[in-house]
Amino acid sequence: MDQLEQDFLHGLKTVLGLPNPFVPLHEPEFMGNEWELVKDCLDSTFVSSVGKYVDHFEVMLAEYTGAKYVVAVVNGTAALHIALLLAGVRPGDEVLIPALSFVATANAVAHCGAIPHFIDSEFKTLGIDPHALSDYLKHCSLSSSEGLTNRFTGRRIAAVVPMHTYGHPVDMVSLLDVADRYDLTVVEDAAESLDSRYQGQHTGTFGLLGTLSFNGNKVITTGGGGAILTNDAELARQAKHWTTTAKQPHRWEFFHDAVAWNYRLPNLNAALGCAQMEQLPDFLRRKRLLAQQYEKVFKDIDGIDFVVEPPNSQSNYWLNTLRLNQPSFEMRDRLLTAANEVGYQCRPTWTLLHKLPMYADCPRAPLPIAEQLEASLINVPSSAKVALV
Amino acid sequence: MDQLEQDFLHGLKTVLGLPNPFVPLHEPEFMGNEWELVKDCLDSTFVSSVGKYVDHFEVMLAEYTGAKYVVAVVNGTAALHIALLLAGVRPGDEVLIPALSFVATANAVAHCGAIPHFIDSEFKTLGIDPHALSDYLKHCSLSSSEGLTNRFTGRRIAAVVPMHTYGHPVDMVSLLDVADRYDLTVVEDAAESLDSRYQGQHTGTFGLLGTLSFNGNKVITTGGGGAILTNDAELARQAKHWTTTAKQPHRWEFFHDAVAWNYRLPNLNAALGCAQMEQLPDFLRRKRLLAQQYEKVFKDIDGIDFVVEPPNSQSNYWLNTLRLNQPSFEMRDRLLTAANEVGYQCRPTWTLLHKLPMYADCPRAPLPIAEQLEASLINVPSSAKVALV
Ligand SMILES: Cc1ncc(COP(=O)(O)O)c(C=O)c1O
Ligand SMILES: Cc1ncc(COP(=O)(O)O)c(C=O)c1O
Repeated sequence: MDQLEQDFLHGLKTVLGLPNPFVPLHEPEFMGNEWELVKDCLDSTFVSSVGKYVDHFEVMLAEYTGAKYVVAVVNGTAALHIALLLAGVRPGDEVLIPALSFVATANAVAHCGAIPHFIDSEFKTLGIDPHALSDYLKHCSLSSSEGLTNRFTGRRIAAVVPMHTYGHPVDMVSLLDVADRYDLTVVEDAAESLDSRYQGQHTGTFGLLGTLSFNGNKVITTGGGGAILTNDAELARQAKHWTTTAKQPHRWEFFHDAVAWNYRLPNLNAALGCAQMEQLPDFLRRKRLLAQQYEKVFKDIDGIDFVVEPPNSQSNYWLNTLRLNQPSFEMRDRLLTAANEVGYQCRPTWTLLHKLPMYADCPRAPLPIAEQLEASLINVPSSAKVALV
Repeated sequence: MDQLEQDFLHGLKTVLGLPNPFVPLHEPEFMGNEWELVKDCLDSTFVSSVGKYVDHFEVMLAEYTGAKYVVAVVNGTAALHIALLLAGVRPGDEVLIPALSFVATANAVAHCGAIPHFIDSEFKTLGIDPHALSDYLKHCSLSSSEGLTNRFTGRRIAAVVPMHTYGHPVDMVSLLDVADRYDLTVVEDAAESLDSRYQGQHTGTFGLLGTLSFNGNKVITTGGGGAILTNDAELARQAKHWTTTAKQPHRWEFFHDAVAWNYRLPNLNAALGCAQMEQLPDFLRRKRLLAQQYEKVFKDIDGIDFVVEPPNSQSNYWLNTLRLNQPSFEMRDRLLTAANEVGYQCRPTWTLLHKLPMYADCPRAPLPIAEQLEASLINVPSSAKVALV
């Protein structure tokens, strides 16, 4: 075993203690009012499409994020699908997304009948690099009265989707500047960044719309769940309408006025979400302590760095991330093997989206940084409960 | 108030007792192990995409329905969407569905990029009329080596979707015969017909694929949920793969091999489903008693009939249904007004799908029976708990 492997395992042990027998990557915690609210929901019999917990959860999220309107939905993929449709993404359009993201970002674009167009990431934020994007658009796009088109494919470029990777905010001031100059609608994939802030403003509230996920591996969970954030009353109304079969209110008639989805969050899952929201500040306090422990311990280890929150930002440190100084799939996989064998669940970042067969033919910018990050990022155990507080 | 209104209210009172203050159309019941299993699920922390309850729920459904394979998903709309894709429905195809159905049947077709093509219903079953379908296909379709096409639109007709209305099974022998002669793939929308059988065989198991819903208003509920049924191992494997982001199993790599969905049922909702499945036989016993009470009481009332299960079929009597002898929107709405004002929640059937703006331009067969049914059907309170047992 070489030095880096030894140091890496030693670092994990220092932060996490000995695995006994297994430290998961991210585990939820239900130590608050989860049982009570879920039981109350069952007792009410309103477990499904109607019920007070959905409304309550939406209000809690609005208050927490500062978004004016929140629409709870069945998961983060559904949230992004509808947000993109509301942003005007239409079949045959292209949507700019980072090559370094979870596959759901690209899938939501495909669910609109649109085509992902992959953009490079920034070393510091792990998210879309606004400067690289700007340079790229200069040569690959054409602006006209009909909007932005891809000079090579002739397709409309309808939107850009910054994703706040592992909780670290994208450089939003620069991104909004580029979007503004190119007349691009911004939809933020904030699935991973509940409580992450850029210059004090919550991620997901910069774009026309933003989306959250409450999957089991996120900072809070509803089993499965997601939300659409917006400051636009009319978009919020439509988001609710399109995610609830577009039924017009009536005493008894079933009149629906648009092709629509059953994307509503069940009240049962919302009840869990309300209890989780109450815990969120405590989860985040402990997650931040854990991140500080990683930062401190790995500062002294050569060859690998802990990824800290970008300047002007506050990260939720959803998944703590280490970065090899020398990108190497071989070394990355050796460290992953060593850690997972001992019982620390560690993961590489995602396979870059343009390397997946269904997205291999999609347009893309040069991706030098994303390629480096793919060969150097390692996620390490990040549950609030493993922080030694 | 005229005689029919008086008789109708009196009939409801005889069956249901006095509303105190309100008898809902259909209410779930959680008097079994619901809380225990949900609590166990919370305690395990596996509330989301991984967990034993999803597997368990799928096995229970397979045993109950006789389907070889069951894939639990997030709701009935998602189930039908994926079932149609698996049946080979592609953008620009037409799919034959009843005009008399909940909007989700048409939406699932639209979600595939396909076009609903509306078919008439049968008076007895309230579902697709196989004989009318056969006559209609004779003049409107063309068979060739590429399959069936619509002679007027030139589009491929990819599948037919019988829906078992309010639990009453479609005449499946005749329908399968038509499908066979025209080489049409059958996908059953069995959202409303868990436990309904045709000649002893469970609805949803006749077609290549079938789908269920566990929405809050159905015979059992998971908050939100659905399932795909099939006897084909490869289709079942694909259904699971496509509804769970098409991720290839690997110790740590994120490699996905198809555009796919996050349509998995959370383990929390599956835990509720397992407990509900335990109760199902008792729910159905009581629902059948309630239906018998309606049948008996409304036998003596002139001008309105109770819809009984079709020949050779066993209905789950999901929603008990009365039918005016003389179709009349005016009389229907008078009865609805009277009943709802007193506190019996009653509903008309759905607005026929071709009357909704987004489906108004879709192709359709003559719909004389569906038109009559629309002006004559009334759903009356149907919860198992209101049966006077
Ligand atoms: C970046 C990103 N986008 C979208 C999603 C989709 O969210 P969900 O799993 O709730 O559908 C996730 C999380 O899984 C994600 O990490
Ligand atoms: C005929 C029919 N199809 C599809 C669905 C869709 O099911 P879900 O509401 O679970 O999406 C329903 C129930 O709502 C239904 O009644």
